[in-house]
Amino acid sequence: MPESFYERLRRSVVTSGPLVVGIDPSPAVARAWGVASDASGLRTIARTLLSACGPFAVAIKLQVAFFERLGARGYAALESVLEDARETELLVIADAKRGDIGTSNQGYAEAWLADDSPLAVDALTASPYLGVGALTPLVEQAARAGRGVFVLARTSNPEGDRLQGARMPPGGTVAEDVVSQVRAWNRGSAAGAVGVVVGATVPDTVALADLGGAVLVPGVGAQGGTASDAHQVTASAASHSVVVSVSRALSDLGPDPRRLAAAAQRWRDDLARTLS
Amino acid sequence: MPESFYERLRRSVVTSGPLVVGIDPSPAVARAWGVASDASGLRTIARTLLSACGPFAVAIKLQVAFFERLGARGYAALESVLEDARETELLVIADAKRGDIGTSNQGYAEAWLADDSPLAVDALTASPYLGVGALTPLVEQAARAGRGVFVLARTSNPEGDRLQGARMPPGGTVAEDVVSQVRAWNRGSAAGAVGVVVGATVPDTVALADLGGAVLVPGVGAQGGTASDAHQVTASAASHSVVVSVSRALSDLGPDPRRLAAAAQRWRDDLARTLS
Repeated sequence: MPESFYERLRRSVVTSGPLVVGIDPSPAVARAWGVASDASGLRTIARTLLSACGPFAVAIKLQVAFFERLGARGYAALESVLEDARETELLVIADAKRGDIGTSNQGYAEAWLADDSPLAVDALTASPYLGVGALTPLVEQAARAGRGVFVLARTSNPEGDRLQGARMPPGGTVAEDVVSQVRAWNRGSAAGAVGVVVGATVPDTVALADLGGAVLVPGVGAQGGTASDAHQVTASAASHSVVVSVSRALSDLGPDPRRLAAAAQRWRDDLARTLS
Repeated sequence: MPESFYERLRRSVVTSGPLVVGIDPSPAVARAWGVASDASGLRTIARTLLSACGPFAVAIKLQVAFFERLGARGYAALESVLEDARETELLVIADAKRGDIGTSNQGYAEAWLADDSPLAVDALTASPYLGVGALTPLVEQAARAGRGVFVLARTSNPEGDRLQGARMPPGGTVAEDVVSQVRAWNRGSAAGAVGVVVGATVPDTVALADLGGAVLVPGVGAQGGTASDAHQVTASAASHSVVVSVSRALSDLGPDPRRLAAAAQRWRDDLARTLS
């Protein structure tokens, strides 16, 4: 078996810190940067963030929706950004929130987690409404390939609380149940392949001790969360297992590489100091 | 405002019956059909099912995972299948189970539900783990364009029960809560734009009276459900508001158009008789 995603990520966090550069090339960002909201504009935004902020990050996280918006041409742009990212030491996370059943999940696994796919990334975000167990084909493929799956557990957006905070027998919440199932996977055959997504500003903390997998924390920066929020919500997680994505707080600065680099360095330092 | 997706679908079900031809061009189907598991093979499978079975159906449902598996080339194949489908009277459903928050959902809305997108379809399936309310950008775009969103509510796969059957205050299940939120949308500004997905063989039925939206029932045929199961689980839904997708029970028959057409006609007749 290859080294697990969890071990790769922890090793990288030790050397590079916990910053994940979120690349969300929305039409609003394209307008603010003065580039067209087409495939070429998306490539410009993504490559600029990659080269300016990448040196201060452990990973990039690409929001797939903004590439999918343009159909096949958007996916071609995404493939070329992924090629560039593979030239670096950065881990690459596709924020696609995929999730289906059976052979359909096998299709998503082959798209994102197989060595020979043009969309191959180090980790994919996945959504568990069809059951955490339904994600098995994704998790098995990730484990085989030394790649990872981040399962949505507890998110910061206000609409998420109603479902994710619902209580399940014998007593925990839906989100806590997702985390337990992920923990069980990491104790079994998928050791280290499965992580969770936990927002920086969630209404109740989730116990992350002995998760055996990585924790991805979005919602820091423009969405209102701080490095300190990210630390608090993941206080129970293992050291160097938490990575924090910052998106709009970087892209809102515009396309000047020096300004972007300086901001990424500040975020990296702030996050590294607060989380360690 | 354009005619709502719900009204369009009901009108079509009256004339064409409730059969949805599920197009799931997996590697296994490609092998069984003797075509390559590449973009060209996918197009062959999809076009054959479309032309042979389409005349007996109200809609086709494309499983996006099997196109995404091939990256940009797969999406180009999907776009060309969608072009063919737009030449017919069939409704087109993209089974993509998308779901994110905020501007990311706006990206998915522009990909699948905007008139000028190469991926534009009549309806998109969506996953509510981030909260039904988080799907607002998808629903608003659907309502504006006379298109639809089918929100996953209660699915047939065994792994789904634990989360979807969890009880929420004051007493219903997570799945029932999803249905109530969809109902509230259809009573408000998104009238008729939002439907639900309910599996044919679920452990408990969901009350669908006054939903004001369409019901998509997968899981019939190779997944074990029958027309009678589909009828039972949707007995509380409005007449002509239910459509039933059959995938592998058709594609497993192989590429002979006459055989496929005969099977589609039998399914259409069986479903129309049982559900009406």
